[in-house]
Amino acid sequence: MNSALLDFSRAKDWIITETRFDPTALGKVEANFCLGNGYLGLRSATEERYPGETRDLLVAGTFDRFSPEEVTELPNAADVTNIELTLDGVRFDLMQGEILSYARSLNIRTGLLTRDVVWRSPNGKRYTLRFERVVSLRRLHTIALRVSVTPDEDGEIVLRSGIDGRMTNDGSQHFTEGQTRYYDRQYQQFVPRTIQSDIHFVFDASHRFTVEGEAVEPKSDINIVRRRIFSNFTLRVKGGQTLVMEKFANVYTDRDKEAEGLTLPELQELALNALKGDESLGFDALAEDSARCWEEKVWRRAPIEIDGPDFDLFAIRFVQYHMQLMTPAHDRRMNIGAKGLSGEGYKGHTFWDTEIFLLPYFIFCMPEVARSLEEYRYLSLPGAHAKAAHNGFEGAQYPWESAWLDDGEVTPEYLGTDILTGQLIKVWSGFIEIHITADVAFGVWQYYMCTGDQDYMDKYGYELILDCAKFWLSRLEPGEDGMLHMNNVVGPDEYKEHVNDNAFTN
Amino acid sequence: MNSALLDFSRAKDWIITETRFDPTALGKVEANFCLGNGYLGLRSATEERYPGETRDLLVAGTFDRFSPEEVTELPNAADVTNIELTLDGVRFDLMQGEILSYARSLNIRTGLLTRDVVWRSPNGKRYTLRFERVVSLRRLHTIALRVSVTPDEDGEIVLRSGIDGRMTNDGSQHFTEGQTRYYDRQYQQFVPRTIQSDIHFVFDASHRFTVEGEAVEPKSDINIVRRRIFSNFTLRVKGGQTLVMEKFANVYTDRDKEAEGLTLPELQELALNALKGDESLGFDALAEDSARCWEEKVWRRAPIEIDGPDFDLFAIRFVQYHMQLMTPAHDRRMNIGAKGLSGEGYKGHTFWDTEIFLLPYFIFCMPEVARSLEEYRYLSLPGAHAKAAHNGFEGAQYPWESAWLDDGEVTPEYLGTDILTGQLIKVWSGFIEIHITADVAFGVWQYYMCTGDQDYMDKYGYELILDCAKFWLSRLEPGEDGMLHMNNVVGPDEYKEHVNDNAFTN
Repeated sequence: MNSALLDFSRAKDWIITETRFDPTALGKVEANFCLGNGYLGLRSATEERYPGETRDLLVAGTFDRFSPEEVTELPNAADVTNIELTLDGVRFDLMQGEILSYARSLNIRTGLLTRDVVWRSPNGKRYTLRFERVVSLRRLHTIALRVSVTPDEDGEIVLRSGIDGRMTNDGSQHFTEGQTRYYDRQYQQFVPRTIQSDIHFVFDASHRFTVEGEAVEPKSDINIVRRRIFSNFTLRVKGGQTLVMEKFANVYTDRDKEAEGLTLPELQELALNALKGDESLGFDALAEDSARCWEEKVWRRAPIEIDGPDFDLFAIRFVQYHMQLMTPAHDRRMNIGAKGLSGEGYKGHTFWDTEIFLLPYFIFCMPEVARSLEEYRYLSLPGAHAKAAHNGFEGAQYPWESAWLDDGEVTPEYLGTDILTGQLIKVWSGFIEIHITADVAFGVWQYYMCTGDQDYMDKYGYELILDCAKFWLSRLEPGEDGMLHMNNVVGPDEYKEHVNDNAFTN
Repeated sequence: MNSALLDFSRAKDWIITETRFDPTALGKVEANFCLGNGYLGLRSATEERYPGETRDLLVAGTFDRFSPEEVTELPNAADVTNIELTLDGVRFDLMQGEILSYARSLNIRTGLLTRDVVWRSPNGKRYTLRFERVVSLRRLHTIALRVSVTPDEDGEIVLRSGIDGRMTNDGSQHFTEGQTRYYDRQYQQFVPRTIQSDIHFVFDASHRFTVEGEAVEPKSDINIVRRRIFSNFTLRVKGGQTLVMEKFANVYTDRDKEAEGLTLPELQELALNALKGDESLGFDALAEDSARCWEEKVWRRAPIEIDGPDFDLFAIRFVQYHMQLMTPAHDRRMNIGAKGLSGEGYKGHTFWDTEIFLLPYFIFCMPEVARSLEEYRYLSLPGAHAKAAHNGFEGAQYPWESAWLDDGEVTPEYLGTDILTGQLIKVWSGFIEIHITADVAFGVWQYYMCTGDQDYMDKYGYELILDCAKFWLSRLEPGEDGMLHMNNVVGPDEYKEHVNDNAFTN
C-alpha cells in the first residue's frame, strides 16, 4: 500500500512534508500547506494545473455579493501561481511520465513552501525541478515564487506565467473583466473590480531569469486575452545547468488602509513601485525578511513549549501558523473567517468561533490583535442594533455570520434545496441562533479581565456589553411558571432547532 | 514523429477520426467534432476533464450581459458531459497509465461521436472503453451519452455523473446559483437563470445501467453542492463483462417557443417528461432517430455530389454538417453566430457573414431556413432604426454585430487595452463598418431573386430594403467635386480604418 501522504518525521525542524503526488488529495494539501499573512491567504495549489484543484487567493475584508439572492463572500481573486512548463515540447504534468522523486514541504517557522521533483518525461528525458513560494509576513501584499529546472540534457524550456482573472467561487464570478496593462515590456498588471461592493483590485507580476546564477533574457511574448495576461518565456539550457525563474507578484485593493485618499492610478503606481522594490530585493531576501518577521511577530511573542513528543509541539505551532495566516490583525474593520483565508468555505464570514476558540490565544499572546478583533465587534454595533430593531428587540443583536461592517446579517437564509422534496432548506442560525450575542459580550469581558485594558472598555466595551444586555432583557419571555424563559433558539448543537431554554444559550 | 492527428481515410464513410490523444490539441478537436442541431451546440470535450479543455454548451438566442461594461453574449450553459470514471480506485485519465489504442470518430452523416480506448491503468489493469454521444437533430433539447467499460479482470467501477453549473465564459458567470432538484431518486434537475436577460434554463439528467445487456441497479448517492448536482454510481463487474451506462440529458429555456405561456414549474415538468420519454427510448433508438432526421432534413434535401477525391466530397459535407449545427432554423427570432455554436468566439453574434457566406446555401437548398434568417433581419429593424437615429441618419442602419432582437448594436466598443500604451483599443466596426446595411439588403434581394418569394417581399422585404436605402441617402456627403462621397468607413479589410470611398462599401 501507499505510504502516508503526510510525513511528520521532520516535525523537530518545523517541517511537514507531502511524500508523494496524490491527485485525489489536492484539496487537503492545498489547505494544510496554505500560505498567508492575515491580509491575504493563498491556497497551495501546484504551479501546473490539475483537474480537481481549487486555486484560491482571498484578500481579507473584500466581501462581494454575486447576486441579490446570495450573501456576500470573500471573492476568489486572480491567480498568480499558475506556471506552466513545457520541457522539450512536453507539458510538465505529474500525471504523465514518471515521478522519480517527490517531496513538498512547508516550513511553518519561515512560511516557505518547497516542492522538489525529479521527473522523467514521456519522451525519456529527465529533469530536476524545485518550486519555492513565500507570502511575505512583513510585506502584506507580496507573493514570491521561484522555479528551478535542471535538465539532464541540453534542451528548450518554455515557462508560461502571468495573471489569471478567470478564477471564480465555485462558478460565481465576483469581478469585472478589468483592465490589463503591460509596463516597460516587463511588468504585467490587471485591474478588475468587484461587481457589487465596487472594490478595485490591482495585481502585478514580473519575472527574472538566471542560468547558473547569471542573469539571462529569455525570448518572450505578451498575451492579453479575456481576463488574462501572461507571457511565454523560452530559453535553451545546457544539460546539468540550472535555469531559475523568480516571479514577483502583489495584490492591492482600494479598500486597503494604504489606499485611503489615493486615486486608482495612484494606487496602481504604488503597487507597481512596490513590485519593483520586491524584484530588486529578489526571492531570497524577501523570504529571509519574511522568516525574520515570523520570528519577531509570532515565535518570540508566543514561544510555546511542550514537554512531550516532537509531534505535539509541531501540532501547536501548526495551529499558531494557521492562526497567523487567518487573522487580519492589520485592520480593525476585519475579523477572522470560520475557514480562515485557506478556502471558500463559510464565505469568509466571522462566527462565534472568534470569541470562543481563537480570541483567548490572542488575548494572552498578542493582546493588540485581540483588541483589534474586539474593536471590529464594536464597529459592527450599528448592524447589531438594526438586526435587533428589525426583530422587534432592543439593544444589539449580533449577526450569526458577519462580514463587512455594514453588511449586517450575512447568514444565507436557505442552504440549497431538500433533494427529495424540492423544498428550500431554511437556515435558522441567522434568525434564532442567538447565543452569538452573549459570545461577543463574553469575549469583551474576557479580554478586559485578562488585559485590564480600561481604555478599550471606556471607549467601546461597556457600551457593547450594555447593548447586548438590553437585547437579552427584551428577548426573554415570562412563562406561566412566573419565570423568564428563552424560547425558540438554536443552541450550539445545530442539529436541534427551536429549542426552549437551551442550557448553553441560557 | 507523430502521425497526423486527424485521419480522413474513412472519408468515403463520412467519418473523420482523431488518431491519438493529444492534450495540446483539445480545442481543435472539441470544435471540429462539435455536436448540435441549431437549437444547441455542444463542444466535444472528453467525458473526463483535462487542463486546457473548453467545455461549452451554447443555446441559440439566450444572450446575456455579464456587466454593464460588456455586451451580450451566448452564455456557456451547464455541462452534462463530464463523467469521471474511477476504475479499481484509479481515475481514468489518459495522461497516466498507457494508451494501448485510441480512436475518436465523428460520423457526420449521423452525428454520432464515438471514442474507443484501450487503457492500461498505472496499477497494471487493462480496460476497454467506448464513449458515444449524440445531440438529437429531431429532439432539439436532447443530449444522450453512453459509456461502456470492459475490464479484463473483476473489479469495481465508479461513475460520477450529473449536471455542472460552474461553467463560465472565460471566467464570466452568466447564471445565478439556481435551484437543484432530485425527483423519484433518479432524475437530476438544475434550474438557474441568466443574470441580466432573466432567462430560466432547465437542465435534466438521468442514468441507466446494464451489465452484459441486463439491467442493473448500482449503489448510488446524490450530491448537491453549489451549482452542481451529481451522483456516484458504484458497480462490481466481472472480468470480460461490459458495463454500460446510458445518460440522458436535456436543456430547455423559457425563451423557447415551446415555453410560451408556460409557468416555470410547467416548463420543468415538460422537460422532465421529455427526459423520461428519451430514457424509455434508450440511446440506440434516439441515435437512430436522429440519424434518420439528418437523412431527411439535410442529406436528401442537399445531396451534393462531387466528381473527385473522397476527401473533397467529405469536405463539402463537413461544411454542410457544421452549417446545420450552427443555424437556429427553428426560431426566426435568431440568426447564425460568426463562430456558430461551437465556441464562445464572437460571443454568438451575427455579422455580415450570414448574408454573404451562408445564406446562398440555404437559399438554394433550404429556402425556408433562408426565409427564417431574413425574417430575423426584418424583426431587427427597430434596432436598426434606433442606430440610424442615434447617429443622425434616416432609415435603418444595421448593427455590425447583432444578438437578441432588442439588443441593438452589440459590437464591443473596446477590444481590451493596448499592451504598451495602456490605452483602450477602440473597435470602429460598430461605428463605421457600415457595409453591413448593404449586405443585409443584398441578402434580401438575392433571396427574392432566387426563390421568387413574393409573400416575404410584400410583408418584410420591400420595407427593409427601402429603409436601408434611406440610410444610404442620408449617409452620403457631397464633395467639392460635386459628387456624393461615402467618407470615413471601415471596409471588409478591417486593418484599415477611416477610409474614404472604400470600393467594397461604395
